[in-house]
Amino acid sequence: MPNPTAAMLVIGDEILSGRTREANMYYLSGELTKVGIDLEEVRIVSDKSAAIVSAVNALRATFDTVITSGGIGPTHDDITADAIAQAFGVPIDVRDDARALLQAHYDRQGAELNAARLRMARIPKGATLIDNPVSIAPGFTIGNVHVMAGVPAVFQAMVASVLPTLIGGAPLLSQTLRIQRGEGDIAGPLAELAQEFDDLQMGSYPYQKDGAYGANIVIRGTDAARVNAAMTKLSGLFPA
Amino acid sequence: MPNPTAAMLVIGDEILSGRTREANMYYLSGELTKVGIDLEEVRIVSDKSAAIVSAVNALRATFDTVITSGGIGPTHDDITADAIAQAFGVPIDVRDDARALLQAHYDRQGAELNAARLRMARIPKGATLIDNPVSIAPGFTIGNVHVMAGVPAVFQAMVASVLPTLIGGAPLLSQTLRIQRGEGDIAGPLAELAQEFDDLQMGSYPYQKDGAYGANIVIRGTDAARVNAAMTKLSGLFPA
Repeated sequence: MPNPTAAMLVIGDEILSGRTREANMYYLSGELTKVGIDLEEVRIVSDKSAAIVSAVNALRATFDTVITSGGIGPTHDDITADAIAQAFGVPIDVRDDARALLQAHYDRQGAELNAARLRMARIPKGATLIDNPVSIAPGFTIGNVHVMAGVPAVFQAMVASVLPTLIGGAPLLSQTLRIQRGEGDIAGPLAELAQEFDDLQMGSYPYQKDGAYGANIVIRGTDAARVNAAMTKLSGLFPA
Repeated sequence: MPNPTAAMLVIGDEILSGRTREANMYYLSGELTKVGIDLEEVRIVSDKSAAIVSAVNALRATFDTVITSGGIGPTHDDITADAIAQAFGVPIDVRDDARALLQAHYDRQGAELNAARLRMARIPKGATLIDNPVSIAPGFTIGNVHVMAGVPAVFQAMVASVLPTLIGGAPLLSQTLRIQRGEGDIAGPLAELAQEFDDLQMGSYPYQKDGAYGANIVIRGTDAARVNAAMTKLSGLFPA
């Protein structure tokens, strides 16, 4: 049975303009791989409602799970929650349980739950809250879409809250062989090996170091014995 | 007049599986911003023909320019050139000028231009070659799609070859004010300022440092005087 699939949607002008380096994709891809969920696509779109609505509707129709990152803070450019409500065709408003979380948090801090902060309690109708132990303002899940903050510490905490609720597959195992020859010398034998082991994925990732070419050959699969067998054969083809 | 738009398509299982950190998006976004081209979307898809074809067709129909990264090497998992040919509905074969480049390169190296390496001379009909001063195997341009290698040094060299041929817009200017207060305190006044200067973009990028909350407020626009005026007003609202 194929593994469940996932897509990630990153919302943020600051990434597209080159101001900020995207920081959550690498983390999420590693976590999903560990539990046997295949991340099949990532999209990064700007803080525009139409772009978010269109991307989330395309991705949620195609993949088992969608995880979004960014755009759920208190400022005017944080429009993700409204765009998700629009994508699902449901109303959105301040919700009592989310407001109570924020009220308690700002009371503890001696800060005011002003109109801007209250925006973070706006939750699309029918969603469930995602716990945020870092800065309290919750994410939410609606349908197969999990809406999370972009700040890496908060994103990671929300992923930790949601991951155990997702149905995983067989974790992907991988082994890597570093071959100090040009990819052009590796490609022919590797293609034959890939055909022989067509239940496995074999990738070649070239590098250049101190003027010499080489490649890391990665063999991936869910059956440890098959991955071992293919790796043994590959090592025999390219002895160190 | 609005700036020309661009999208980036990254092809690579190794990024989606968390093995490799994506390394070209940050560079490209910065280069495009400098010449006034708005990067509006990035997609990362796996090494599957259908995924590449579908993404490239969606992006080239929507944006002025599409730049792809990855999947044009000599190994069996390098299928980008074939997928691009399929997306444009044109044939693909080894082309003489590309083969000549490779032949001269491998002759100099005393290496053989074998079947695997010759794959890198497969160019969709009607494309023009993109110069690769780093490792010779060319990228190519077809329609509004520029197909480049994923290895960062080669990607950057290809971007340098192509950028001067693209029509840019007004470069985006940006100024940043670091405010050491929570976003919730900033959001109200910032939203009013954004309404007053509705020809500018204002973004708020929160951070947490040593337990204190703050935000970098970025004001972007193409008119320096307007950006200055908005920043002066913002500084007045939040004196250091």
